[in-house]
Amino acid sequence: MEPEIKIRGYHTDLYQHVNNARYLEFLEEARWQLVDDYLDMDFFVNKGYFFFVVNVNISYKGQARANDVVTIKTGLKKMGTKSAVFRQCVFNRTTNTLCADADITFVIAGIDGKAMKLEGELKELLEKIPQADTIQWGMDN
Amino acid sequence: MEPEIKIRGYHTDLYQHVNNARYLEFLEEARWQLVDDYLDMDFFVNKGYFFFVVNVNISYKGQARANDVVTIKTGLKKMGTKSAVFRQCVFNRTTNTLCADADITFVIAGIDGKAMKLEGELKELLEKIPQADTIQWGMDN
Amino acid sequence: MEPEIKIRGYHTDLYQHVNNARYLEFLEEARWQLVDDYLDMDFFVNKGYFFFVVNVNISYKGQARANDVVTIKTGLKKMGTKSAVFRQCVFNRTTNTLCADADITFVIAGIDGKAMKLEGELKELLEKIPQADTIQWGMDN
Amino acid sequence: MEPEIKIRGYHTDLYQHVNNARYLEFLEEARWQLVDDYLDMDFFVNKGYFFFVVNVNISYKGQARANDVVTIKTGLKKMGTKSAVFRQCVFNRTTNTLCADADITFVIAGIDGKAMKLEGELKELLEKIPQADTIQWGMDN
Repeated sequence: MEPEIKIRGYHTDLYQHVNNARYLEFLEEARWQLVDDYLDMDFFVNKGYFFFVVNVNISYKGQARANDVVTIKTGLKKMGTKSAVFRQCVFNRTTNTLCADADITFVIAGIDGKAMKLEGELKELLEKIPQADTIQWGMDN
Repeated sequence: MEPEIKIRGYHTDLYQHVNNARYLEFLEEARWQLVDDYLDMDFFVNKGYFFFVVNVNISYKGQARANDVVTIKTGLKKMGTKSAVFRQCVFNRTTNTLCADADITFVIAGIDGKAMKLEGELKELLEKIPQADTIQWGMDN
Repeated sequence: MEPEIKIRGYHTDLYQHVNNARYLEFLEEARWQLVDDYLDMDFFVNKGYFFFVVNVNISYKGQARANDVVTIKTGLKKMGTKSAVFRQCVFNRTTNTLCADADITFVIAGIDGKAMKLEGELKELLEKIPQADTIQWGMDN
Repeated sequence: MEPEIKIRGYHTDLYQHVNNARYLEFLEEARWQLVDDYLDMDFFVNKGYFFFVVNVNISYKGQARANDVVTIKTGLKKMGTKSAVFRQCVFNRTTNTLCADADITFVIAGIDGKAMKLEGELKELLEKIPQADTIQWGMDN
């Protein structure tokens, strides 16, 4: 399910638009939602596995102001040996503009805190996530 | 040491002043500073003790905007059998006004998560904290 | 509509529960929802009226951790000459406990920034908000 | 002046380290500090100019936990026709490790909200900021 967030006064800053740090919370919200929807959280918790973000590359392309409604789309863009990349977009549904797009690179760390190889069970789980190239990134849906 | 915070864009909200939730972070900052200054943090960590806030009663009396400098004063107002109360004030040094005053009621929980009696060693430690009635709450210092 | 928030990693702090400052964002969220549901926001915007919180008295009674779902109830508790009080409760629906209850005192300021008398049109609008004593504050609904 | 921040409970999240969104506030703090130190803020305010971040590319390389002290270094990495790039690093002084490095691309918008050419007065002002290649990025200073 694509998260939908109505922008409130506390989301905005001096410039009366959503602050750039707050967007990272919106993106984190959408990634947790994805975990809820497609992954087996118990599997991760029982194994003591953690998701660690290692890079965020976010472009701010439009604004969101109080009372605007934004939605966040997320897809898996790439899976490497030890890291993978989510593609995420924040759309302003009120003004019909793209607010931000981002690539989020993450690893899955085991109980020793080290990045694990994305193979076997782990790889199969991640493959359940909608692939970025199958997603309609436009705003018409 | 009294924390001094210069207000930045990200601290402010729709109304272009510091948001009411952010003030609670400022107050928490000042309480950690107090722990650094007057208490033996190792004692608490080694025993597995935690500070839990059980009530916040905060009055917002003035505003703080970007570029204003605020300072926070903290004193121990009251010690009960199982809970104690900090008095905290946030002053706007740029406009020379009181932004907020607050009573923060807290307990100290042991490893079982339950509030402990504030007696013996614990009481002695808390008594090291400056008492609210010995503090100059005015803005002239 | 009562806001429902699923607690995520970014909502929690050192103690792995929702931080006391974050609760104030949850309460603000619920108040904006109330404005959406019962008041005529355009009326306020057109007149240049603002809601200012002047006091928050919040008791933290239980915890909310990652993956828990909380809901927030809000009602108008009291209306004075120039200020009014919201009653708000945050319930943890996962653990079936009360997390926090709060009284939020606010004023409505006009374009000169001064609190206005809650009479006439303003009073009628505020009376549209569900009164606290008509709300079922228990968790069974 | 290089900002120094002591990590407190409210800065950390589920994983008991500083949350990735919070790092963006630390970086914003350091950029405002830079404006205070090297630029003529009044010039920007009087002209109605705003700094807008258009891209953040941040790599998380180490962790910062409660009681750790971090410092943030900032330098101007590149100036283009209409946008410029800050280089920023967050160092954990307690564990002597790099927490994060980031490139922050920004524009300066005029009162019409559009990015202005970085020429004339604007360019001269930005050139007052320490250049990234003159900064000692290591942790030994």
